[in-house]
Amino acid sequence: MLKDIHSPSDIRGLSTDELKGLAGEIRRELIDVVSENGGHLASNMGAVELTLALHIAFDAPKDKIVFDVGHQAYVHKMLTGRAQAMRTLRRKDGLSGFPRRDESEYDVNDAGHASDAISLALGLARARDLAGQEHCVVAVVGDGALTGGMCYEALNDAGQSRTKLIVILNDNEMSISPNVGAMHMHLTRMRQSTAYRSFKQGLRRALARLPRLGEKLERALERVRDAVKLLFINDMFFDALNIEYLGPIDGHDVEEMVRVFRRAKEYDKPVVIHVVTRKGLGYTLAENRPERFHGVAPFYADSGKARGAAARSAGSLAAQALAERAKTDSRIVCVSAAMLSGTGMEVFQQAFPDRCFDVGIAEEHAVTLSAGLALGGMKPYAAIYSTFLQRGYDQAMMDVCLNRAPVTFLIDRAGLTGEDGETHQGVFDLAMLRTMPGMTIGCPVDNAELRRMLELSFELNAPMAIRYPKALPDGADASFALGEWTLEREGADVCLLACGRMVRVARAAAARLEAAGVSAAVVNARFVKPMDEKALTVVAEKGLPVVALEDGVRAGGFGEGVAAWLSARGYAAPVEYVTVPDRFIPQGTVDEQMKMCEMDEESVAARVGRALGREPYADTRR
Amino acid sequence: MLKDIHSPSDIRGLSTDELKGLAGEIRRELIDVVSENGGHLASNMGAVELTLALHIAFDAPKDKIVFDVGHQAYVHKMLTGRAQAMRTLRRKDGLSGFPRRDESEYDVNDAGHASDAISLALGLARARDLAGQEHCVVAVVGDGALTGGMCYEALNDAGQSRTKLIVILNDNEMSISPNVGAMHMHLTRMRQSTAYRSFKQGLRRALARLPRLGEKLERALERVRDAVKLLFINDMFFDALNIEYLGPIDGHDVEEMVRVFRRAKEYDKPVVIHVVTRKGLGYTLAENRPERFHGVAPFYADSGKARGAAARSAGSLAAQALAERAKTDSRIVCVSAAMLSGTGMEVFQQAFPDRCFDVGIAEEHAVTLSAGLALGGMKPYAAIYSTFLQRGYDQAMMDVCLNRAPVTFLIDRAGLTGEDGETHQGVFDLAMLRTMPGMTIGCPVDNAELRRMLELSFELNAPMAIRYPKALPDGADASFALGEWTLEREGADVCLLACGRMVRVARAAAARLEAAGVSAAVVNARFVKPMDEKALTVVAEKGLPVVALEDGVRAGGFGEGVAAWLSARGYAAPVEYVTVPDRFIPQGTVDEQMKMCEMDEESVAARVGRALGREPYADTRR
Repeated sequence: MLKDIHSPSDIRGLSTDELKGLAGEIRRELIDVVSENGGHLASNMGAVELTLALHIAFDAPKDKIVFDVGHQAYVHKMLTGRAQAMRTLRRKDGLSGFPRRDESEYDVNDAGHASDAISLALGLARARDLAGQEHCVVAVVGDGALTGGMCYEALNDAGQSRTKLIVILNDNEMSISPNVGAMHMHLTRMRQSTAYRSFKQGLRRALARLPRLGEKLERALERVRDAVKLLFINDMFFDALNIEYLGPIDGHDVEEMVRVFRRAKEYDKPVVIHVVTRKGLGYTLAENRPERFHGVAPFYADSGKARGAAARSAGSLAAQALAERAKTDSRIVCVSAAMLSGTGMEVFQQAFPDRCFDVGIAEEHAVTLSAGLALGGMKPYAAIYSTFLQRGYDQAMMDVCLNRAPVTFLIDRAGLTGEDGETHQGVFDLAMLRTMPGMTIGCPVDNAELRRMLELSFELNAPMAIRYPKALPDGADASFALGEWTLEREGADVCLLACGRMVRVARAAAARLEAAGVSAAVVNARFVKPMDEKALTVVAEKGLPVVALEDGVRAGGFGEGVAAWLSARGYAAPVEYVTVPDRFIPQGTVDEQMKMCEMDEESVAARVGRALGREPYADTRR
Repeated sequence: MLKDIHSPSDIRGLSTDELKGLAGEIRRELIDVVSENGGHLASNMGAVELTLALHIAFDAPKDKIVFDVGHQAYVHKMLTGRAQAMRTLRRKDGLSGFPRRDESEYDVNDAGHASDAISLALGLARARDLAGQEHCVVAVVGDGALTGGMCYEALNDAGQSRTKLIVILNDNEMSISPNVGAMHMHLTRMRQSTAYRSFKQGLRRALARLPRLGEKLERALERVRDAVKLLFINDMFFDALNIEYLGPIDGHDVEEMVRVFRRAKEYDKPVVIHVVTRKGLGYTLAENRPERFHGVAPFYADSGKARGAAARSAGSLAAQALAERAKTDSRIVCVSAAMLSGTGMEVFQQAFPDRCFDVGIAEEHAVTLSAGLALGGMKPYAAIYSTFLQRGYDQAMMDVCLNRAPVTFLIDRAGLTGEDGETHQGVFDLAMLRTMPGMTIGCPVDNAELRRMLELSFELNAPMAIRYPKALPDGADASFALGEWTLEREGADVCLLACGRMVRVARAAAARLEAAGVSAAVVNARFVKPMDEKALTVVAEKGLPVVALEDGVRAGGFGEGVAAWLSARGYAAPVEYVTVPDRFIPQGTVDEQMKMCEMDEESVAARVGRALGREPYADTRR
């Protein structure tokens, strides 16, 4: 049936049974696609009926449906003309795992970070009102995203202004990590107030037993239902914010949702509809372990086992080292923002549950909480994905650095990150962190360096950031000092200054260059801030052309820092900058992205050769 | 009496009348100091009794009192050994207008940005519990700051974990701009539920008429009072977050507050105490116009009139231009984050109240709301102070730039900002914004350039930032194209590439250098991104040494960008970088800060001379 769905209008005439059949087909397709390509499974499995109801009740693309984060928009893609393309999901040049405007007019915005949908939708709604238009604006927000302060800021604004806006709270009792926070407890209490739900079910059954009694009776009964519902819609949180609340309703009952959504359209003010769904529904393995099947690498659908051998994550190695240290150092604590599993910190949490604080999707709070813990005498490690640390820029600057609070940021998923694409690249962190006075930035090239940097952090009474990709190779024992670079390879023609993952690229490029008759020195510049001025001076005084390599954007990155340092002292600045270019880098494998950015070893060798004007590389520049 | 207060213990034995006398003395001193030095008046006038009660009920510095923002901590400073130093407030090397740990052990953290105190306090409280300590941790938060999402993130976390923590909500019904948002309406409803308050007052009077009836009776009456209070503490918002709520109580009744604060100490979980104060109390002009006396330049205490002639702000000029354009362009809308007055946007608001959205202290939401307005077809201008835009870094990256949403940021208070010191410098914005793909960054040197940049923004269908200090000189008519730099002055020895405010410094330095026999070219590099590559090529091909000048940090700034561009093309990178150094710049006048940073014309001339090795400037480098 799915192959006949080209746009939402194709589902509007379907019977209840047909919708059920379609839902089953969609679920099978979700399992097939995600088990093959990786991606977000559990959230989409839970949102099948919700998405069907959305596209029946609302008239997209005229009505605007904004998906928060967007990782639950696979079903939306299938229903809006992209079912056939699903097999390209998350692959280079394929469908994105998130809404993308260049894919479809049904995608309202390019999304990927949590908790921003209500703000964006409120903007769309106000623009609609100013333009004298009439369509609906709907924000679909998970309960996990509701821990983000932006949601509250937006609701606070919407509640005052009385802008017509529909917020659908998709409450699947689970964000990426098990949901946390008092709001979660509050929602649970609401879900558990069973009086309303059992009444509804009774009414439904009663109606079912009396088919075709005539529309009038049904409408009368509906009015009764609504009157009863009114008894239960006094949610105190939303009421305090002056927002109407409807729910909780069953997020797997399409007809019930369509009915409530249509009712919500009649409100001339903001309304929250609380929809309860079951994450992973229809795939038992995911129902039982939704966290495991939130964002997932390719797996075998029958067993749920990963197809590839997963490398041990750098984060879990760090967590292990912290847990080891924490046995004798009672100051060690960890902070996570709904990423205990993704950052590997669950290893620490299991060992020291009382010293591990998962605050939910709330990076601003996570960073300042860490500052507070540090000012209170603890030694906090805040494990956050690079891209999400962008949410805590000001807090890292003002609460951590200005206060010289000894917080260590464990920045996971740094550099190019692969299939999640534009919104999940960890390529801005070096530029962000370099601006912060007193910050030390370490980029380990392998696990041994990561372990050594952690050791150094234990003794450092100041802010520090250690940034690494999801997994690192093991590496030989490392014993460098804080801030120390290493000349790994001598060379006579050019000097490659590289940090983090790019050290390996530099090594490989140097080998290629050697084969082409170019002798390249390689410096492991593992600390981006402060730079090893002694090592830089040695490099500079050799007088070799310098090439800087980093897996971050050029603007504000390591290479620019090297350029300013060298040139201000009368030395020549780098002749070539191997960096992520100044655009958003789309999905693909990390290797594909490295090639897109000309950051792979082959491209680097060619770029260095060209910069030197050396054969076999033609100089095509200027 | 104030001169005898050296620490909080000196106020603990004072009688009610003595406390009243002291409060009066403090208020007179506040008026004297702030009218002379400028600073935050209204918030401190309103917090006199609250601060007295805090220091009577709590035992600082053992107990930790965290002031949100910290602009209301003047009274705290007076009571903690700094009364004599108040006359140095906000002056170079004097007392800071915000808590600073290097001033006093009573200052828990270096503060300045809003809405972070609960997060920080929660960290301190958890550190206390882990260390097995017993002291109290108190966060003092204004109702304005409560619009910030961080507060909600922190309360959500605190409410779940049941950490012992006292949050004092100083509700003065006014943040910097008139308070906005549904939460504000909610607080107002609570304040207006007078039943509780009139009961309390009756009980108080009854007690006062029966002095020395014995402690037993008083305690019994207190229990009754608490029982009654219980009827009123069911605040639904805080209850939803699982936080105890006490209040509202009279924030000018020291004894009542001391009693409630002491009761709060007994709670073994988070408790919010809602204290109602009157901003500006004791200075009629400030009571009547608290917004006018929030942050204020030196003024005559008797008339309230400013001592100096205020230059017309750049922001109000921008607002005027927008209002003019908005008459014929219905897409123009403005967004502010509790800074309508400070950014001059009240001019626009008065002209187009329906097209101006003040969201409160909520920069994250402000930025994404702007993105939503833009995606909905509007042309939004988001007026935000440079330092507070740091709160919206991720939103500017993901919601604005990734979506190519035509939002224009009007970044006020850019560069060094003067007396507010470390937390209010607008020196990180160039580095932040340069990382953002697709962003255009303009730095006008005068009002004419600002006007021209606004004109250009009207036609630009992409993200843009225009950043400027509080006021600009007028300047001659400007007619440059988007992205165009101007060679303002030819020179034979060196080329000064400057942006924004630093163009004027470069002009003056060039004049000085000329007098010393150095011929300096000056380029007005008014667009930091994208750079004018044609102009840069012309500069580079002249082969002159280049000096880059900007009023922002070096890391990631304009100069580094110039260095990378030039050197990657085989040209020489700048020989000198005139930037804000890599440390937090303390308070002083802007001129003093420019000198501290060696960014004033005299220092620049000397630095350029030295870099060139020219007499009369000795080359002392390397």
